[in-house]
Amino acid sequence: MKLLEERIRRDGIVRPGNVLKVDSFINHQMDIALFEEMAKEWKRRFAGKPVNKILTIEASGIGIAAIAAREFQVPVVFAKKSQSINLDADNYVTKIHSFTHGREYEVIVSKKFLGSDDHVLILDDFLANGCALLGLLEITQMAGATVEGIGIAVEKGFQEGGRLIREQGIQLESLAIVESMDAQTGKVRFRCQEKENA
Amino acid sequence: MKLLEERIRRDGIVRPGNVLKVDSFINHQMDIALFEEMAKEWKRRFAGKPVNKILTIEASGIGIAAIAAREFQVPVVFAKKSQSINLDADNYVTKIHSFTHGREYEVIVSKKFLGSDDHVLILDDFLANGCALLGLLEITQMAGATVEGIGIAVEKGFQEGGRLIREQGIQLESLAIVESMDAQTGKVRFRCQEKENA
Repeated sequence: MKLLEERIRRDGIVRPGNVLKVDSFINHQMDIALFEEMAKEWKRRFAGKPVNKILTIEASGIGIAAIAAREFQVPVVFAKKSQSINLDADNYVTKIHSFTHGREYEVIVSKKFLGSDDHVLILDDFLANGCALLGLLEITQMAGATVEGIGIAVEKGFQEGGRLIREQGIQLESLAIVESMDAQTGKVRFRCQEKENA
Repeated sequence: MKLLEERIRRDGIVRPGNVLKVDSFINHQMDIALFEEMAKEWKRRFAGKPVNKILTIEASGIGIAAIAAREFQVPVVFAKKSQSINLDADNYVTKIHSFTHGREYEVIVSKKFLGSDDHVLILDDFLANGCALLGLLEITQMAGATVEGIGIAVEKGFQEGGRLIREQGIQLESLAIVESMDAQTGKVRFRCQEKENA
């Protein structure tokens, strides 16, 4: 999505260690007008899919999911992260490892809000190694829900998460896929995406 | 706001110890159509205020703030919660005590996204003892920003947070104020609000 790529080029900050900061418009300050354009693009890419629920994970997926939910006219469920042991029979629980924060989290969704009738679109802001997404996929499996697709704002194409998801045959739509970046020059190179419309 | 009060009566769950669960439509599953009506009501109640930014706190404030931001046509900044010590010179940091989780958090906002030119509307899902809000107010003070008002979905009117905020002369607009609730009967009683329109 050209609009997002241009915004990343303009306002994204490349840091050593392949860190891309987009906190001025995505995950600390949120540009809601941009989120609306992203929502429209996902709606176009997932046209015809019988999505009845959007699933995301706290915290930075929530804003994107809320705005996208307007476009899809469905509710959002956000998975909660916890570091405490939670063996509640009323919840789906799985563990994920966060490389960003260097620790394990439990990811929790109440059984009340996800079941075998649900056709889920999973949304998140970032995809790198895929740990968070694989956790959400595991939770949809526990629930017996159908995953209609996954929408990501920024994918780090040089990490393995995207490949792991696509190998499962899931439609994964990342609006910007970073192929490489250079902390010295600040330059970001994106993967060319054919089905582009925006 | 009648719509929200009716929804709480229908789908809220009262638990012993004055716990009100609204996780089926506000803070785990999110009813975005309801959030849009709440956003319109805040827009009406804060009409004429020169709001240029919405400030909230992760996680459950984010969805409400994102939808309200469409109505106000402004960006959102969400404060981050952390348990790690963070003495970054680039951030405003304060400590809050969470009674819900029984521990202390640091609340963090980057100095890049809040400053003395900002006219802030603070939004959150719940107000009880007011710890989270007082933390956000402290951060706006550090930034020299002007607080134009505070919007809350559900205020527990029998706890002191609302009084503490109103005593500071800040316009606080809670869309539903619970006066009392009964875990045995499941009944919730709301404070009568005169300026009601919805």
